[in-house]
Amino acid sequence: MQDYSQLKHFIVSSPSEYVAHVEINRPQKLNAFFEDMWLELGKVFDKLSHDPDVRAVVFSGAGDRAFTSGRSSIGFQRDGARAATSMRRHIDEFQECISRIEKCEKPIICVLHGISFGLAIDMSCCADVRICSKDTKLAVKEVDIGLAADIGTLSRLPKVVSNISWVKDISLSARIFGADEALAAGFVSQVYGSKVESIAAAISWASLVASKSPVAVQGTKELINHARDHSVADSLHYTAIWNSAMLQTEDVKSALLSGLNKTKPRFAKL
Amino acid sequence: MQDYSQLKHFIVSSPSEYVAHVEINRPQKLNAFFEDMWLELGKVFDKLSHDPDVRAVVFSGAGDRAFTSGRSSIGFQRDGARAATSMRRHIDEFQECISRIEKCEKPIICVLHGISFGLAIDMSCCADVRICSKDTKLAVKEVDIGLAADIGTLSRLPKVVSNISWVKDISLSARIFGADEALAAGFVSQVYGSKVESIAAAISWASLVASKSPVAVQGTKELINHARDHSVADSLHYTAIWNSAMLQTEDVKSALLSGLNKTKPRFAKL
Amino acid sequence: MQDYSQLKHFIVSSPSEYVAHVEINRPQKLNAFFEDMWLELGKVFDKLSHDPDVRAVVFSGAGDRAFTSGRSSIGFQRDGARAATSMRRHIDEFQECISRIEKCEKPIICVLHGISFGLAIDMSCCADVRICSKDTKLAVKEVDIGLAADIGTLSRLPKVVSNISWVKDISLSARIFGADEALAAGFVSQVYGSKVESIAAAISWASLVASKSPVAVQGTKELINHARDHSVADSLHYTAIWNSAMLQTEDVKSALLSGLNKTKPRFAKL
Amino acid sequence: MQDYSQLKHFIVSSPSEYVAHVEINRPQKLNAFFEDMWLELGKVFDKLSHDPDVRAVVFSGAGDRAFTSGRSSIGFQRDGARAATSMRRHIDEFQECISRIEKCEKPIICVLHGISFGLAIDMSCCADVRICSKDTKLAVKEVDIGLAADIGTLSRLPKVVSNISWVKDISLSARIFGADEALAAGFVSQVYGSKVESIAAAISWASLVASKSPVAVQGTKELINHARDHSVADSLHYTAIWNSAMLQTEDVKSALLSGLNKTKPRFAKL
Amino acid sequence: MQDYSQLKHFIVSSPSEYVAHVEINRPQKLNAFFEDMWLELGKVFDKLSHDPDVRAVVFSGAGDRAFTSGRSSIGFQRDGARAATSMRRHIDEFQECISRIEKCEKPIICVLHGISFGLAIDMSCCADVRICSKDTKLAVKEVDIGLAADIGTLSRLPKVVSNISWVKDISLSARIFGADEALAAGFVSQVYGSKVESIAAAISWASLVASKSPVAVQGTKELINHARDHSVADSLHYTAIWNSAMLQTEDVKSALLSGLNKTKPRFAKL
Amino acid sequence: MQDYSQLKHFIVSSPSEYVAHVEINRPQKLNAFFEDMWLELGKVFDKLSHDPDVRAVVFSGAGDRAFTSGRSSIGFQRDGARAATSMRRHIDEFQECISRIEKCEKPIICVLHGISFGLAIDMSCCADVRICSKDTKLAVKEVDIGLAADIGTLSRLPKVVSNISWVKDISLSARIFGADEALAAGFVSQVYGSKVESIAAAISWASLVASKSPVAVQGTKELINHARDHSVADSLHYTAIWNSAMLQTEDVKSALLSGLNKTKPRFAKL
Repeated sequence: MQDYSQLKHFIVSSPSEYVAHVEINRPQKLNAFFEDMWLELGKVFDKLSHDPDVRAVVFSGAGDRAFTSGRSSIGFQRDGARAATSMRRHIDEFQECISRIEKCEKPIICVLHGISFGLAIDMSCCADVRICSKDTKLAVKEVDIGLAADIGTLSRLPKVVSNISWVKDISLSARIFGADEALAAGFVSQVYGSKVESIAAAISWASLVASKSPVAVQGTKELINHARDHSVADSLHYTAIWNSAMLQTEDVKSALLSGLNKTKPRFAKL
Repeated sequence: MQDYSQLKHFIVSSPSEYVAHVEINRPQKLNAFFEDMWLELGKVFDKLSHDPDVRAVVFSGAGDRAFTSGRSSIGFQRDGARAATSMRRHIDEFQECISRIEKCEKPIICVLHGISFGLAIDMSCCADVRICSKDTKLAVKEVDIGLAADIGTLSRLPKVVSNISWVKDISLSARIFGADEALAAGFVSQVYGSKVESIAAAISWASLVASKSPVAVQGTKELINHARDHSVADSLHYTAIWNSAMLQTEDVKSALLSGLNKTKPRFAKL
Repeated sequence: MQDYSQLKHFIVSSPSEYVAHVEINRPQKLNAFFEDMWLELGKVFDKLSHDPDVRAVVFSGAGDRAFTSGRSSIGFQRDGARAATSMRRHIDEFQECISRIEKCEKPIICVLHGISFGLAIDMSCCADVRICSKDTKLAVKEVDIGLAADIGTLSRLPKVVSNISWVKDISLSARIFGADEALAAGFVSQVYGSKVESIAAAISWASLVASKSPVAVQGTKELINHARDHSVADSLHYTAIWNSAMLQTEDVKSALLSGLNKTKPRFAKL
Repeated sequence: MQDYSQLKHFIVSSPSEYVAHVEINRPQKLNAFFEDMWLELGKVFDKLSHDPDVRAVVFSGAGDRAFTSGRSSIGFQRDGARAATSMRRHIDEFQECISRIEKCEKPIICVLHGISFGLAIDMSCCADVRICSKDTKLAVKEVDIGLAADIGTLSRLPKVVSNISWVKDISLSARIFGADEALAAGFVSQVYGSKVESIAAAISWASLVASKSPVAVQGTKELINHARDHSVADSLHYTAIWNSAMLQTEDVKSALLSGLNKTKPRFAKL
Repeated sequence: MQDYSQLKHFIVSSPSEYVAHVEINRPQKLNAFFEDMWLELGKVFDKLSHDPDVRAVVFSGAGDRAFTSGRSSIGFQRDGARAATSMRRHIDEFQECISRIEKCEKPIICVLHGISFGLAIDMSCCADVRICSKDTKLAVKEVDIGLAADIGTLSRLPKVVSNISWVKDISLSARIFGADEALAAGFVSQVYGSKVESIAAAISWASLVASKSPVAVQGTKELINHARDHSVADSLHYTAIWNSAMLQTEDVKSALLSGLNKTKPRFAKL
Repeated sequence: MQDYSQLKHFIVSSPSEYVAHVEINRPQKLNAFFEDMWLELGKVFDKLSHDPDVRAVVFSGAGDRAFTSGRSSIGFQRDGARAATSMRRHIDEFQECISRIEKCEKPIICVLHGISFGLAIDMSCCADVRICSKDTKLAVKEVDIGLAADIGTLSRLPKVVSNISWVKDISLSARIFGADEALAAGFVSQVYGSKVESIAAAISWASLVASKSPVAVQGTKELINHARDHSVADSLHYTAIWNSAMLQTEDVKSALLSGLNKTKPRFAKL
């Protein structure tokens, strides 16, 4: 794995071969984000995206109490068009950083626990798989501070779970909901007894995925994400172009041979 | 609240501050709709949309037996292209009226009970949140009268629940299903024991939402609806523009201050 | 029903009036597909699409052990742009055959049982309704052979079930899941005790649908499929045009009359 | 033709069979628009759209000096989110009125002459064909009053002419350009020596179009407009549905017979 | 070149290396099309698309008098929904055949001459480049026979030339226009003195294109066609995927070397 | 203006108030680009985008001989999927840098002169207005080096000029064309006698635009660019949201007052 030791707000470790574990590291403040943190966050996921030693990523928050309580307070300017322009540039930049989680080419499993408000939903919607511990408290909190969520929740959540009656209920009421409701709505796909168990399960899932052909895994992520925003006809056509390049790989042969030989295949770095 | 006393087919009351309750008022005919009713329906929701004293809407049917049994029978014309043109103009106008429920800027919680057939599905899919009582009987009935549902069900239902196997099952078979199946499929987000309890729950939810910043609430509704029909990239960009205008508001300051002071914030009308 | 007796890889029978039953007929090889089979498959569904004696289709696999274990191995060519072009043409043709299941104008209920890997998911996502027997073992297997699924699963599955966390979990891990998990995720809408029961339920559902107005049924299928890939505004407009042509039919009158007379309506062929 | 004599700001006459001529009637003020005028404008085109005695429309401005000098000044409100909401509702309503020109089912030929600024471009982009007299002075004037054109020019002009370098030149500089430049850029398709000649040519074109099958003409307009906002694949599919309804008409037979008999066909009203 | 000698309605010759020349061969009937012809047309272009000995195609009409006078008369059925279904299937099939011209992977230059009505516009809009002789008479004739053009003109012409005022003028009036007007509107890119000169120029252009790298040429065609129906962001992304596969080719090296050596490069078949 | 003196490959000067002039500064090599140059190019336009002292930009190439001869040669890697991944990342990054020209919030006028091949077309398509001198030689050269243009030309050119017959002619043949043909096709909107005259005209245009309200100018650019990739309905809606924020500005008042007073308005920085 490349060197991630210079980070100020995140810890990146490698708990298993080809697996990176990113932790938000401000537990004493419930992992609340301020601007310098989200700028660094974007850079972390950019680097992981091209790091050939990383094939799957676990994303969680340090400490026992919170994945993240959200973002710290926002400053405002005044007077019409100029204030609006400045605000738009600010939101664009913030969105851009958070979207880099989604743009990371490697699969990401996000572990939620404890307080998981506001930005916790924005960020976890950018991950590929979401799991959480029993004690998780979730909320789309923005309405309570007088604004519509603007860093991604309202754009991605309806495409992640699609029970729109429930999405609107929680987004308009800002009410807190727990792990079981998140599971029933399909927001998370598993609930575990504790944060420790959740992290263990996430690492195990990431290790499994990291043992597969990286050509196949990264293509699968890219193609599912592409399908979300395109018609089926467009998506099929894009898939054909994608695989026309990607099937020219030794990974298929390696996979077939080790299938016949009952051995574990080894795949070259990507 | 503005004056809604001249309506012929609907009762509009205000059960709580900033909450409007719209009731379909033809209980002796199972609240079945004829043309004059849906024309008036469009006007009701247009007026609620801009009424500064309304911040959330409860939508239900009067009487014990039905939310609505659907639309009354349709007249037909004959001879090819001219009949088709006349039919298209008729459907356009009908759709346009029903779509005004969706276009209303204020959140709408729809309470279904008893017989809820055909147009009941068309209309409730335009609401933001759907709940129902245990006795509700639902059906997409159009196939049984020889036509494909054309006032919105087939366009909106697949985006409201997204278990497509189930959507096609009920739409192609026209079979009646109950409250539990509606809950399991995600069509409603809560089931209550009776119509009375359902209405109470709806008013309570609407009151909660009406106590929040109307700038934040109406923005949240608009942005989730926009996300449904656009790519994530488009949706993020639109959100940034929207909030660049909407964050220039006293509501954020009011919300933050009352958060610190543990008081209930008061927001100006919108 | 037209004559389907010349088929080499499929059995087409008529278990009930206006119902066709298509079975994949290579049970000794777990119904695995090779090129000649999918070329024939496309032709079968093209013919069913316009056959006036067919109003609903049951699709299943012969034998006790598998719906299908997927496709047989793929040949590869080498050297860059020319290999990529050849691969793209191959995938295009394969996709085109499988998509004909979706393009068939008649509703299709797919019965999964036993081993249902890879192509089983591609094909069943093209059906309208999916049910399965308790013993079904499903998997999106492609990652395990070093490639991203390219015949439709990654394009259609996210639009069929929409719990994206689950879709990515199974697609990236290639893990096998059972009937109950498929039901919980909304991939199938019913689970039955055995293949025999599942087939009986499918024929019963298909018979019910086949007894309805074919004008109404085929319109309903077309309009739900159209909605998937278009905005609500586009979908409403398309619906109005569609029904402006389709409401000029005797089926509406027949349906209304038999409703009044408590008789079973008879509809002309389409 | 239906009765249009109650209009306050427009004159509607019928210079030829099945042809309506709409004139903006405030020549003493260079046909400048205020709110009451555009509300009435929307109603005029709505009525023409369904009037069975109208098959083509000429749209021009009364007087010698101007098609229109644009809109009269705009009032403003203040204070952030609430002012923005009020402004958005105002622009929505204004846009909606102007768009009714485009939504009118009958072909519209717009005659520009003299001063044709701002709203002149917004409105003429909604017509199907644009011609002008030699003395026409055109401009996208909004930049000069401190705002971006918001009633349609920036949305439609790039799709009407498509020399983007030229569109941006005139829109960003607000410079005045003449008839020849408008012709060279493809904004108008003909230039005539005077307003009188232009009106005569427009009536002649409208009469020709009005002599054709109204089923064919209105379909052609609808399908070209649909093509603008959809992919070719979508457009072809929509065309097939449209014509499947519209080809069931006596107009085809009438046209063919009068072709053989060298007579002028007569078509029923639509 | 593969064997094209069994065709009934078309002549396919090879006037130059890697160039195919397709001629519509019914000159005694002004090359008017009937159903058997367009079914064969689809097959011709499918075969050319994958024929490794063809790198560019010239498409023209045999005889001196017409490229084509359009399609022969259409049969009609009656009675509402069933007639509409039959009509829709017919149009779908006809469109599908004509679209195969566009889907052909090789660049096509279309030479128009003499009478070029109706289907002449449908088909030539599917070609990549259009040129014509001075004597060409063009028209979108469908309005004159009581229907809207439905085989592609109304879907493609607005995207081919984009002076919408002119497109609507000719489509709504069905008037005949000549070569110079076609050139000024951008419908053709060159006009030559005679059919002979036009064919010679087309063969010369096709030979030039056929001498280039087929990987580069076919990619260029595909990417421009893709751009037409997608946003710039989508198009850029698709381009990156396409070239990531296609740049792995010897053609780049061949082109660079022959550039240095001032020799003519030779490219392998595709 | 901010400090642009540290740039290695570009000169940025301010020839007029609020106008920046960016020159590609490698004239001895015909301004050919290598990787370090396009990385810097992206940064230059990012900085100009937010620089409050810049309201319009002139973009040209230093020296007499070329705007740019294109990009320097490209390195290649080999072996299938891994090479394709590396290539895709490279093209993504290159596209991203060039797209920053388009994303710059300020209007850009591009002056082409002399040799303007390959990347010259990619980059100038990102500008808002294009002009050139009489001696300009243009070409989409990529086909001649064995590849399809992948940095933007094939995505943007068909939307900039829209005579598709011409776009395909020059893109497939790679032939060199001159200033007059570029003007006739609408690729440039003016041709001047020399580079000196062209630069003077560009500075004059930029100065005019820079004297207008920056709120109005930047909104106009944004809204025309948005219209290109969206339906008219979407574009109108977006425009309403945009202007609801942007009309809250003193610029409108300033513009109106100076209009009345016949003075030149002064607008605050944005």
